[in-house]
Amino acid sequence: MNLIDLLVKTNNTKIIMLVLDGLGGLPDDINGKTELEQAVTPHLDQIAKEGAVGQVIPIQTGVTPGSGPAHLALFGYDPLDVDIGRGILEAYGVGMQVGARDVAIRGNFCTVDKNGIVTDRRAGRITDEIAKPLVELLAEININGLNIDIRHVNQYRFAMVLRGDNLSVNLDDTDPQETGVRPLDPKPNSENAKYTADLVGKWIAEAGQVLGGYEHANMVTLRGYSHNPGLKSFGQRYQLSAGCVAVYPMYRGIARLVGMETIEFDGVNVADQFSAGQRVLNSNDCEFLFVHVKQTDSYGEDGNYDAKVNAIEEVDKTISTLMQANPDVLVVTGDHSTPSRMQAHSWHPVPFLLWAPDTVRKDQAIHFGETECLSGGLGTMHAKDVMSIILAHSGRLKKYGA
Amino acid sequence: MNLIDLLVKTNNTKIIMLVLDGLGGLPDDINGKTELEQAVTPHLDQIAKEGAVGQVIPIQTGVTPGSGPAHLALFGYDPLDVDIGRGILEAYGVGMQVGARDVAIRGNFCTVDKNGIVTDRRAGRITDEIAKPLVELLAEININGLNIDIRHVNQYRFAMVLRGDNLSVNLDDTDPQETGVRPLDPKPNSENAKYTADLVGKWIAEAGQVLGGYEHANMVTLRGYSHNPGLKSFGQRYQLSAGCVAVYPMYRGIARLVGMETIEFDGVNVADQFSAGQRVLNSNDCEFLFVHVKQTDSYGEDGNYDAKVNAIEEVDKTISTLMQANPDVLVVTGDHSTPSRMQAHSWHPVPFLLWAPDTVRKDQAIHFGETECLSGGLGTMHAKDVMSIILAHSGRLKKYGA
Repeated sequence: MNLIDLLVKTNNTKIIMLVLDGLGGLPDDINGKTELEQAVTPHLDQIAKEGAVGQVIPIQTGVTPGSGPAHLALFGYDPLDVDIGRGILEAYGVGMQVGARDVAIRGNFCTVDKNGIVTDRRAGRITDEIAKPLVELLAEININGLNIDIRHVNQYRFAMVLRGDNLSVNLDDTDPQETGVRPLDPKPNSENAKYTADLVGKWIAEAGQVLGGYEHANMVTLRGYSHNPGLKSFGQRYQLSAGCVAVYPMYRGIARLVGMETIEFDGVNVADQFSAGQRVLNSNDCEFLFVHVKQTDSYGEDGNYDAKVNAIEEVDKTISTLMQANPDVLVVTGDHSTPSRMQAHSWHPVPFLLWAPDTVRKDQAIHFGETECLSGGLGTMHAKDVMSIILAHSGRLKKYGA
Repeated sequence: MNLIDLLVKTNNTKIIMLVLDGLGGLPDDINGKTELEQAVTPHLDQIAKEGAVGQVIPIQTGVTPGSGPAHLALFGYDPLDVDIGRGILEAYGVGMQVGARDVAIRGNFCTVDKNGIVTDRRAGRITDEIAKPLVELLAEININGLNIDIRHVNQYRFAMVLRGDNLSVNLDDTDPQETGVRPLDPKPNSENAKYTADLVGKWIAEAGQVLGGYEHANMVTLRGYSHNPGLKSFGQRYQLSAGCVAVYPMYRGIARLVGMETIEFDGVNVADQFSAGQRVLNSNDCEFLFVHVKQTDSYGEDGNYDAKVNAIEEVDKTISTLMQANPDVLVVTGDHSTPSRMQAHSWHPVPFLLWAPDTVRKDQAIHFGETECLSGGLGTMHAKDVMSIILAHSGRLKKYGA
């Protein structure tokens, strides 16, 4: 058992973990500043002055993480011990239940030509309005031996959960990851996966029949077959009631997977999220609030430096809403870096900001940015140690040993 | 299996790892600068400006490494998992084959007086011309049960490989590490090593007979008995074709041991090495080039601060030759520190320079030197993570997890 879990104690403190997805960046060629350094962030800078900064290695040196393992690490789970498939993240994200022997799958609508060759892997990013009725058609398919639950996620994405006896996750993805070729077969990678491969193959064939006449999306691909890894819940481990304010299903899925409550709210922008967060903290329904902001990552992936800068400034303008919930500890960081010049997730360490007026060892930082974080008072830590830092600064860890 | 190995993918990038042996130093008493800081290095400084710096702990805090484990760590092998004996390094260095059950041994010529007392452990560093015929004499020795391969390395050094049944490496070195005493016996350290000890003892006795009449060297000492550890090759692990440009046999041996090609070239100075490196990279025969410069360590061991400074300046003057091969990633570092004021290897962290224009998070460094490396953007890392950093910055690692 993890030492931190053994030392946990409870008190009345409130904690906010604000994750700006893909926060870390690279300097641009014009003035040598990253997106975070370029952004005008007087409020985050003031919080940095009152607190301490550092940087976080998401997984290990040089390793670029997906969002699943990166968030698990921030929540204190060793991302190398826990294998979280895309399927279960999507299924949990839309509130489906997945048992230990069920198989969760991430599905995409796509288009194929008359020879079955993939022409668009995302079916032109069809709208929810077009996709939802297609999901209803797929829900009609019956395969002997399978109990199938299927739900629309958003745009061209859906999630499936297969229930039945002797189901395996040891199958190949059918998404070929390129156009101009046929979808792949759900090939079994072990003897005991042949039965599942056969059933999934039948379902895909039926799906092709059902969708065949539709213009916008006439085929599907499947990937990320996964069981429920049965994680010990966040609440059990840390004796904290935890809530999540996130817009995107996948992050709501990660939060549910570790047993956090997902908080419903109106709106999709940062101000809406922060208001919902403030409300739930003030109502004392929640001691640990995870707030996930997606825009920083999306604009990074788009290669849009200026838009990522603006997204950070948007957070800065409204962060007072969160502070009005009077947290005892606030952490602002990212799950990984998404430098806009790389248009992708990267391995670079992520800026980290800790505000905890009663317990923090303040450092010299007066701005929140990569350069100051590099020499910040918290040094360089691994993401899986972030929860230890948070629990310590909130007085929620007992002394170790006599 | 190592996570990095699982994430490796291929592309067309070219990588140079330039190892200045024993690069790290200590400040002198005159102006408080290390050898690297004292050296005038405009080209390395420019590369530092364009890249990022940091420092590397070769093995673990406080541990002074030999060249074997220090290089293995730089190549991404855990130096605590892999036991590389001196014998196998010498044998590989001169191109001998060593099987998993063979025993490789490093031998020295020495001189003893008429009572068998060692008077010079290195036989006055005899020349190759004197030593080679003596090695030929030793090659004549036959011991029942042993198939013996013996080759001259350089000066007073030779390498041996013993082949036969039931051979063990669990014997004491016979080099007493001091003069005024007899060579030690190859004492067995386990029951199953007695047989080998007996055969090796017989061989040493014969060697003493054969050399007895010679003035320059009339005895031998043996050490570093070792099997082939059977390392998974660098090429297999990283899917990179790798070449080595090194003058000294031992470093060629380390490179061969991990499956690198050793590149033949004329000349022995840094300019010759860099030209050979440029040629092989430009010919596309090699994606990863390891260049080993010995002089920095040799002058450090001699306690010659000024000569070590000059050796670094010599590298700086010619590094443009390497840059003309258009690498995507260049790393300049050392395997360990060899401060001239200590006249020995040391445990001090080693300066590290990374140049990778597309992917590096540039830092504030404007010089390549210990003080700037201490607060560099890459922080302090372990040598065994250097390959992760290199592969990440060359785009040769897949994302981890969904």
